[in-house]
Amino acid sequence: MRETKKVSDSLTEQQYLIRPSHINHYGRLFGGQLIYWIDELAGIVAIRHSGAIVTTAAIDNLQFQAPAYEGDMVVLQGMVTNVGRSSMEIRVDTFREALDGSRVMINRAYIDMVAIDSEGRPVEVPDLFPETEEQKQEQQAAIKRKALRKQRRQEGF
Amino acid sequence: MRETKKVSDSLTEQQYLIRPSHINHYGRLFGGQLIYWIDELAGIVAIRHSGAIVTTAAIDNLQFQAPAYEGDMVVLQGMVTNVGRSSMEIRVDTFREALDGSRVMINRAYIDMVAIDSEGRPVEVPDLFPETEEQKQEQQAAIKRKALRKQRRQEGF
Amino acid sequence: MRETKKVSDSLTEQQYLIRPSHINHYGRLFGGQLIYWIDELAGIVAIRHSGAIVTTAAIDNLQFQAPAYEGDMVVLQGMVTNVGRSSMEIRVDTFREALDGSRVMINRAYIDMVAIDSEGRPVEVPDLFPETEEQKQEQQAAIKRKALRKQRRQEGF
Amino acid sequence: MRETKKVSDSLTEQQYLIRPSHINHYGRLFGGQLIYWIDELAGIVAIRHSGAIVTTAAIDNLQFQAPAYEGDMVVLQGMVTNVGRSSMEIRVDTFREALDGSRVMINRAYIDMVAIDSEGRPVEVPDLFPETEEQKQEQQAAIKRKALRKQRRQEGF
Amino acid sequence: MRETKKVSDSLTEQQYLIRPSHINHYGRLFGGQLIYWIDELAGIVAIRHSGAIVTTAAIDNLQFQAPAYEGDMVVLQGMVTNVGRSSMEIRVDTFREALDGSRVMINRAYIDMVAIDSEGRPVEVPDLFPETEEQKQEQQAAIKRKALRKQRRQEGF
Amino acid sequence: MRETKKVSDSLTEQQYLIRPSHINHYGRLFGGQLIYWIDELAGIVAIRHSGAIVTTAAIDNLQFQAPAYEGDMVVLQGMVTNVGRSSMEIRVDTFREALDGSRVMINRAYIDMVAIDSEGRPVEVPDLFPETEEQKQEQQAAIKRKALRKQRRQEGF
Repeated sequence: MRETKKVSDSLTEQQYLIRPSHINHYGRLFGGQLIYWIDELAGIVAIRHSGAIVTTAAIDNLQFQAPAYEGDMVVLQGMVTNVGRSSMEIRVDTFREALDGSRVMINRAYIDMVAIDSEGRPVEVPDLFPETEEQKQEQQAAIKRKALRKQRRQEGF
Repeated sequence: MRETKKVSDSLTEQQYLIRPSHINHYGRLFGGQLIYWIDELAGIVAIRHSGAIVTTAAIDNLQFQAPAYEGDMVVLQGMVTNVGRSSMEIRVDTFREALDGSRVMINRAYIDMVAIDSEGRPVEVPDLFPETEEQKQEQQAAIKRKALRKQRRQEGF
Repeated sequence: MRETKKVSDSLTEQQYLIRPSHINHYGRLFGGQLIYWIDELAGIVAIRHSGAIVTTAAIDNLQFQAPAYEGDMVVLQGMVTNVGRSSMEIRVDTFREALDGSRVMINRAYIDMVAIDSEGRPVEVPDLFPETEEQKQEQQAAIKRKALRKQRRQEGF
Repeated sequence: MRETKKVSDSLTEQQYLIRPSHINHYGRLFGGQLIYWIDELAGIVAIRHSGAIVTTAAIDNLQFQAPAYEGDMVVLQGMVTNVGRSSMEIRVDTFREALDGSRVMINRAYIDMVAIDSEGRPVEVPDLFPETEEQKQEQQAAIKRKALRKQRRQEGF
Repeated sequence: MRETKKVSDSLTEQQYLIRPSHINHYGRLFGGQLIYWIDELAGIVAIRHSGAIVTTAAIDNLQFQAPAYEGDMVVLQGMVTNVGRSSMEIRVDTFREALDGSRVMINRAYIDMVAIDSEGRPVEVPDLFPETEEQKQEQQAAIKRKALRKQRRQEGF
Repeated sequence: MRETKKVSDSLTEQQYLIRPSHINHYGRLFGGQLIYWIDELAGIVAIRHSGAIVTTAAIDNLQFQAPAYEGDMVVLQGMVTNVGRSSMEIRVDTFREALDGSRVMINRAYIDMVAIDSEGRPVEVPDLFPETEEQKQEQQAAIKRKALRKQRRQEGF
């Protein structure tokens, strides 16, 4: 029987202080740098859910909503939203955290990861058990995103 | 009257040799590294089309189709597919180039960039003049992607 | 009246996948790389406790207990153990986390951070409220370490 | 019979946006960083001409003519100027490209690359067919540079 | 009979120009970056004394005494202070060097390194012959530090 | 009266352990990485001779004589060979140092540096006093290299 894991079993947070090596010359966090961190965190969440090695299959959607600046602390929060047989959709939200601890969301991304063995063949991952109402709604939205991805592949746009 | 530019005016290619610092421990190009390069090239294409500074707004879609390995040469090719008033959709295709010059596509990504002034306010970009049949079709697909993005924002998934 | 914060208010975890750029040529995580990560996490914990900018004053003690290898996931866990008027002692434990989620400790470090204002002058930090028995014992040990540091400065060894 | 390739068969351009991690503390592109990029591009041009792996043998001459600053886009253009049996001389010109697309040359370098097999032994490269008058003159100058290098090795200066 | 080496046989200096990629957003050298350099230099000193490969065992003590800023030249000086059978204590002093050559010490660190073979087993290192009065005093202090480390391990603080 | 400095006043050595992030995928030190280190050391030597900030003007000649591999220690040794009014020629020799301390030269480079003020204008540097016979011969060779550089600029090759 297939193992089941909760969203909270692999929920992971990562923190970064934005230094000069992370910014473009307008003093803003360079987009490519943030996406690098997002992809890395999505991989860690997927490893923790699957207990396997993983590879990035696709970025479904990634939206920059606000900039971050040199000296800011950014917090990335990653969670599994839905799973297939060997694929996992991971949501990564990025926040700017102020010195008083308050957070503003600056980026949301959906990443598709696939669990593989050492030869690169897909392996089965545990099923996902959404506990909260919000997790259940996110899983429904993930199913819509998956159907949309399939439709786009067929229509080729 | 609004200036018009051709797709070929900002078409840009970038090449990388995959070294140990770019790979994960399975010897494969790390996904986050490739996305970093893709975002950087999308920015260069958008600067060349707009003649302005730019910022990444979103990744609409990014698909890994095949891996690349240590020692491979990867070539990224970026082009404008459609423009709004201050936004530009950029397609970046990534190829693995063999020693005999043959290429295999390993990734396709659509990135939305916005032209801004030094205070971060959107500025108008030149209109796009698609010359070839393929460029016209890609522009039609870009319009469908844009409508879809709008719909997804409204429906919230 | 001086604000008080709990240990859990600033407890922070950070995760890294060890890639080729992090290792020496024996395939082991390079010591300097791990200490770089430890110092960065100690800074984040100190910022979260103090709500101020911080600077590293000293490493009191840092012990490598076991190596980590390419492909391993390492988890760093940082917590405040004791505070002075503007100084904070931070403990950072580093674990190797296996695919099944089990952890082995590979490094323990005690770092002294100082909260400063933008001119570099020390500022007062919130007092620390240890909740658990283990936190109270760690605070007692921190007081012994502080006395020892003072003695060593006086005796010059 | 020895294969022949044109200069245009391996002509390659590379673009970089100068960010804080590339500059020294006067805001100027750090010389070592630019030379790093020049060597990497020379390698790509040599791989494309030879269809083999290559190694840097020497820098014949490299002249900084003007600085570049944070925020500038620099474009590197590399081409084969002359070949021996297994050696290739590569010229890399570096330009600062303004937002209107105009270019100013800031550096010219001549690099000697050698095509090798996986054991490090030299392998034969295709002959070079210069098409334009400028390419023929550059090949004549390359022959003078080669004779000069030989003379310098003999006279030891 | 065990080989003996002098302190001067492995004394090593290393220099760095502080660039934007080394600093935090207050323009000061990032602590983790300096510790990275210190650990690397301690390793080189230990390799030169032992003639073997080495691994970092512990940082006994590391004190930041003054900051360094973007554009400063920092000089790290490393020397062996005492040896056990396979362990070596290395002192690394870091100075800010002004354009007139004068130096101010900004950091002192004591690092414990162990010489190992390719399987990670400890190997014997040459004995240390302190020549100057200062070297003899430093060795006495090192013996006190070693006894203190042992005591701390036993008392667990 | 113009100040005079000896070669030994600015002679500088730098050491690096070659790690996976420094190599190409044949396990050899990447040429661009070594040239990056050479340029950085030439800058430090020129700063120590001139007591001013400096910029790289040209690489006169740089010869790779032997490869270095992952795990090797490389030592760079830089010295002033000749000075003009504000220019300095720096020789940087790179050695592979074995565990027994023996050295094999793998690269020799001549770099031209210019001392500048904060507006980028050339400033006068101290004269050079060569002490040994070898230093006098190297200065004579430097004068020949300088004449040759002038001739090449005039003849344009």
